[in-house]
Amino acid sequence: MSAVQGLSAFPITPSGPDGRVDVAALRRIVAPLADAGVDSIGLLGSTGSYPYLTRGERRRALDAALDAAGGRVPILVGVGALRTDEALRLAEDARAAGAAAGLLAPVSYTPLTEGEVFEHFAAVARAGLPLCIYDNPSTTHFAFTPELVGRVARLDGVVALKSLAPPPEAMAAHLGALRAAGPAGLSIGYSVDWHAADALLAGADAWYGVAAGLFPARCLAILRAARAGDAAEARRLDAAMRPLWDLFKAHSSLRVAYAAAEALGICSAEPPRPLLPLPRALRDRVAEVVRGLGPA
Amino acid sequence: MSAVQGLSAFPITPSGPDGRVDVAALRRIVAPLADAGVDSIGLLGSTGSYPYLTRGERRRALDAALDAAGGRVPILVGVGALRTDEALRLAEDARAAGAAAGLLAPVSYTPLTEGEVFEHFAAVARAGLPLCIYDNPSTTHFAFTPELVGRVARLDGVVALKSLAPPPEAMAAHLGALRAAGPAGLSIGYSVDWHAADALLAGADAWYGVAAGLFPARCLAILRAARAGDAAEARRLDAAMRPLWDLFKAHSSLRVAYAAAEALGICSAEPPRPLLPLPRALRDRVAEVVRGLGPA
Repeated sequence: MSAVQGLSAFPITPSGPDGRVDVAALRRIVAPLADAGVDSIGLLGSTGSYPYLTRGERRRALDAALDAAGGRVPILVGVGALRTDEALRLAEDARAAGAAAGLLAPVSYTPLTEGEVFEHFAAVARAGLPLCIYDNPSTTHFAFTPELVGRVARLDGVVALKSLAPPPEAMAAHLGALRAAGPAGLSIGYSVDWHAADALLAGADAWYGVAAGLFPARCLAILRAARAGDAAEARRLDAAMRPLWDLFKAHSSLRVAYAAAEALGICSAEPPRPLLPLPRALRDRVAEVVRGLGPA
Repeated sequence: MSAVQGLSAFPITPSGPDGRVDVAALRRIVAPLADAGVDSIGLLGSTGSYPYLTRGERRRALDAALDAAGGRVPILVGVGALRTDEALRLAEDARAAGAAAGLLAPVSYTPLTEGEVFEHFAAVARAGLPLCIYDNPSTTHFAFTPELVGRVARLDGVVALKSLAPPPEAMAAHLGALRAAGPAGLSIGYSVDWHAADALLAGADAWYGVAAGLFPARCLAILRAARAGDAAEARRLDAAMRPLWDLFKAHSSLRVAYAAAEALGICSAEPPRPLLPLPRALRDRVAEVVRGLGPA
């Protein structure tokens, strides 16, 4: 399905100290992404702080984003939750609202077994919402094996995998193992922006990008160069983003994205506590990098 | 304070598929622990599945446990939550209900920095509930350094640390580093039942035990032998528990505790999904071990 191909922009979800989503600011974030022509918006991903928001606020955010996107761009939405029944309800909400697919991460507290993750996905898939397996061990502390991807991806309604892009030298083998394990037609895409150009050049189906939520045109240019087989141009465009990648690596893409949104004049929000905004000096450095990059 | 000294029993919190706590079953779990004379009850710890329960259900569980304990034994209660404001509200609830202290783990999704964890504890401590730092990297994915323990433990109201007991050969150095880092009077206790005898013999102030939620008399006997300086007797009693420790290590103490509670005729509950009960054959093995141990 086209909603899980190409460039998916993962924006922040601005919210107040009380956990209430600032839907006006969210519209200001989403509309330009749709204008820029990204292939999808990955709302309420890890960068969108989904686990920190209530079911009601997640629905408010989704409704506002769908409205701001105005049907121009499909919306993928995080439906992950610690409890299976809650994730199922979120998937039902997302389907009813009109999301194109759900992003389902195996959020954990007690470490999960492979069997538990499989049953969790099977239960949530019953909502009838197409699902993207959201594999991000740095937040969920569960790592999918290719074998488990293969089993989960054969569940009715599971259409895609979002994985963490490995370093370039490991990319082809990583993607090859997933292609071999998954069913034909499974979309395999990657996050980790600083490895995305290589992932696309290796043949990945999608780039799930934090930077795309801030600089959609720049990221689309990288995608298009890679899709055209112009590795030199893709790498040149990617290299221009390196100051941002360095900040992402050093201070987390989520925290940097908040500072960048402020520097771009989009919104002035803080991540949900206990997460803290970057200190002033680092926010200044982010602003400097944003200015250096020029237009989004 | 005495509530964070000695043996603290960490029971399961029986709940239904809808996330509603079975308070009748919880009373049947708590009352015998108070009868046995444990030093405290660690309600809604990791084994008590606190992150999987709503604020309302956590309050219902606490009220029922306080009532069943009847003032005979202080109750420590998990007040951890992903959001700082939610953890603060839980600490306020716990204080209002009459808990002796809160167990505060730095629950994370986005990995937390040391500064964020410090501010989180400072904010929750403002509820006025004495707090025990709940350091369990296997669930929170945040590991306290001794230096951070020292900083957090100097916050007003932070009275104790619950750490994971290292293997015996590392125990003295581990405890020594924490004693050196913490303020005088900080209670330093350990979980990881199969290393608890050694932790107590090394001078730990408390044993936070899953087994104590099932076999309080056996665990009290180990504590008393260690406190009396009778290492041989503490180790003999500990060795008798080894079949249970082996199950805890292989299948997680939480999952085994549910099966053991069923085998002991206390209650027949399942952990919150996505966690699954142990398969039948393993539940039979747990029952066999429970029978072999004899009286609780």
